[in-house]
Amino acid sequence: MNRIDERTVDCIAVGAAVLGSGGGGDPYIGKLMARQAVRENGPVRLMTVEEVPDDELVIPSAMMGAPAVMLEKFPNGSEPELAFRALERHLDRRAYGVIPIEAGGLNSCIPIYTAARLGLPLIDADGMGRAFPELQMVTFSVAGIPSTPMVLCDEKGNLMILETVTNEWSEVLARTATVAMGLSSMLSLYCVEGRSLKQCAVRGTLSLAAEIGKGILHSNRSEEDPVDSVLRVTRGVRLVTGKIVDVARDLTTGFVRGRVRIEGLDEDQGAVFELDFQNENLVARRDGRPAALTPDLITVLDRETAVPITTEGLRYGQRVVVVGMPCDPFWRTEAGLEHVGPRYFGYDLDYTPVEALAGGRES
Amino acid sequence: MNRIDERTVDCIAVGAAVLGSGGGGDPYIGKLMARQAVRENGPVRLMTVEEVPDDELVIPSAMMGAPAVMLEKFPNGSEPELAFRALERHLDRRAYGVIPIEAGGLNSCIPIYTAARLGLPLIDADGMGRAFPELQMVTFSVAGIPSTPMVLCDEKGNLMILETVTNEWSEVLARTATVAMGLSSMLSLYCVEGRSLKQCAVRGTLSLAAEIGKGILHSNRSEEDPVDSVLRVTRGVRLVTGKIVDVARDLTTGFVRGRVRIEGLDEDQGAVFELDFQNENLVARRDGRPAALTPDLITVLDRETAVPITTEGLRYGQRVVVVGMPCDPFWRTEAGLEHVGPRYFGYDLDYTPVEALAGGRES
Repeated sequence: MNRIDERTVDCIAVGAAVLGSGGGGDPYIGKLMARQAVRENGPVRLMTVEEVPDDELVIPSAMMGAPAVMLEKFPNGSEPELAFRALERHLDRRAYGVIPIEAGGLNSCIPIYTAARLGLPLIDADGMGRAFPELQMVTFSVAGIPSTPMVLCDEKGNLMILETVTNEWSEVLARTATVAMGLSSMLSLYCVEGRSLKQCAVRGTLSLAAEIGKGILHSNRSEEDPVDSVLRVTRGVRLVTGKIVDVARDLTTGFVRGRVRIEGLDEDQGAVFELDFQNENLVARRDGRPAALTPDLITVLDRETAVPITTEGLRYGQRVVVVGMPCDPFWRTEAGLEHVGPRYFGYDLDYTPVEALAGGRES
Repeated sequence: MNRIDERTVDCIAVGAAVLGSGGGGDPYIGKLMARQAVRENGPVRLMTVEEVPDDELVIPSAMMGAPAVMLEKFPNGSEPELAFRALERHLDRRAYGVIPIEAGGLNSCIPIYTAARLGLPLIDADGMGRAFPELQMVTFSVAGIPSTPMVLCDEKGNLMILETVTNEWSEVLARTATVAMGLSSMLSLYCVEGRSLKQCAVRGTLSLAAEIGKGILHSNRSEEDPVDSVLRVTRGVRLVTGKIVDVARDLTTGFVRGRVRIEGLDEDQGAVFELDFQNENLVARRDGRPAALTPDLITVLDRETAVPITTEGLRYGQRVVVVGMPCDPFWRTEAGLEHVGPRYFGYDLDYTPVEALAGGRES
């Protein structure tokens, strides 16, 4: 895949939402924005990490905050460019291309929008291979790349440039600003040169998202069930099939935090399944025992269509399949787990790969 | 007065704290910083507003937050320059001089410190002629000058550049950032050209502060009581002489908000006096009737020495004189009162000048 047209946008939006592990934003607004930008400016050229010259700069474009807010407080459409151009101006340097910082329905589409509007190539990679709730949870950060200078802006036209002493301080200052801006903002941050990108980028995220999305949107049901297609493409495992019986959510911290409870159906009849989230799904338990743990990907899919449901879209009564998918090997290292493992999020649990947990259950 | 030496710093620190109306920061840390900078770099050249060329830029240097915090969380000393230089870099323009944004023990001394360290002249003026709690409460703001671009930084080295759509948004975003930075930050903001400065600056604030301070620190008691000296220099009125019997304070919003209760002594025996503050003293009531109202200056002085007591320094048992002083005429206009009158702060009270309230009481 070397270009993104309107049809590809649809596939990426839904496929990236699968990789988004419940977060990364609802695909709806992002998809509309990216489609419009591609329609008006033509397809976006997709480029591999290896094609980016060592000395050239690429800049991520992303949304921060509680994505539910964006379904009511629309972007005015100029924020991603405003943030991107302000960062170029601050650096006194032009960017070579745009890159997603994470995989998610919204945060994979915003960079398509930005690249299309600015006429820049988009890099087929990202800094997570999934979505995570805090902005230092990026392979770039683990590799020592500073998140700042970064730019935040809101739909009113307020703009903020940050230069911080640690990426954790960026998270604190950007998060409080985002809350003050009305719970959502658009960012440019983690500017990175081709040289460094080659050391820490998660490759092929957009192509993978497109392939997952194609399986969901254009599968021939008689050949393959769409959920099976997701499992095949992501090397994932089915954690439970069931019905949502309870959802608790809290938005006050600038995150959407909560827990969902699922009762097993069919072959999982009698199983009790619980899922904790902070924007993204973090810990899945089946009958009280861990079934999948961050940083592995945990996504709730509609049982019939395999369309992913973000943590904000979860509702009582939905019939779902929860899937667990192995994360990028980068996150399974000691440094990776220190940044995004279960203990970082306050769980007294050692990380065990999802495929090992699944194997243990089956045996 | 055309230069500020160490001795003048002492007078300005205490005199500006009188003008600070209970806010503007405790003079202690600011005085130490300014003295050291003047000792190391020589006296600071003081310049009138009229001497600033029309096309040249002056930049205020100030502290934001709860000044009590600064008595424990010291500045590292480089923040004012860091903020000032970052703003110059952002504007791609060198400043001609430094100016205080408000009068206050801390915020009149920080600009002396900054001017001394940068080798720049200091303008004998400010944007309030007193202190106010919110950053859009500046004559510059009423005159249409944007508060941004502004720079905030903290003692850890974090730096933030803001460009906002209104000065009210600057207040919201800078305040939340200041709280996140640990309740105090250093700012450069409201950069203003000589041309505009001549339209809205409050003139002679530093000279006035020095004169007030001289009367307090170097008065010959046999000639004039220091409280009388303050009243004479500021054309102020004595509102009450009494003893503090209660102080209530709350710091959680990034301001110090509260109320102090004073029981009259001597000629004021039997009087009950109450003072509301939000960083600065806002409303004084004597026996339930207004005695002085924002934007007029209300300051609590030590009864014997006339040394001003900031809202953070108020303690049970202190013997005090509360003085009311007329504000700059700029604030008594309709536009001025809209920004800083009693109704802005939520009081259902019409502004009446302090001298009129005093006249009414005496008659």
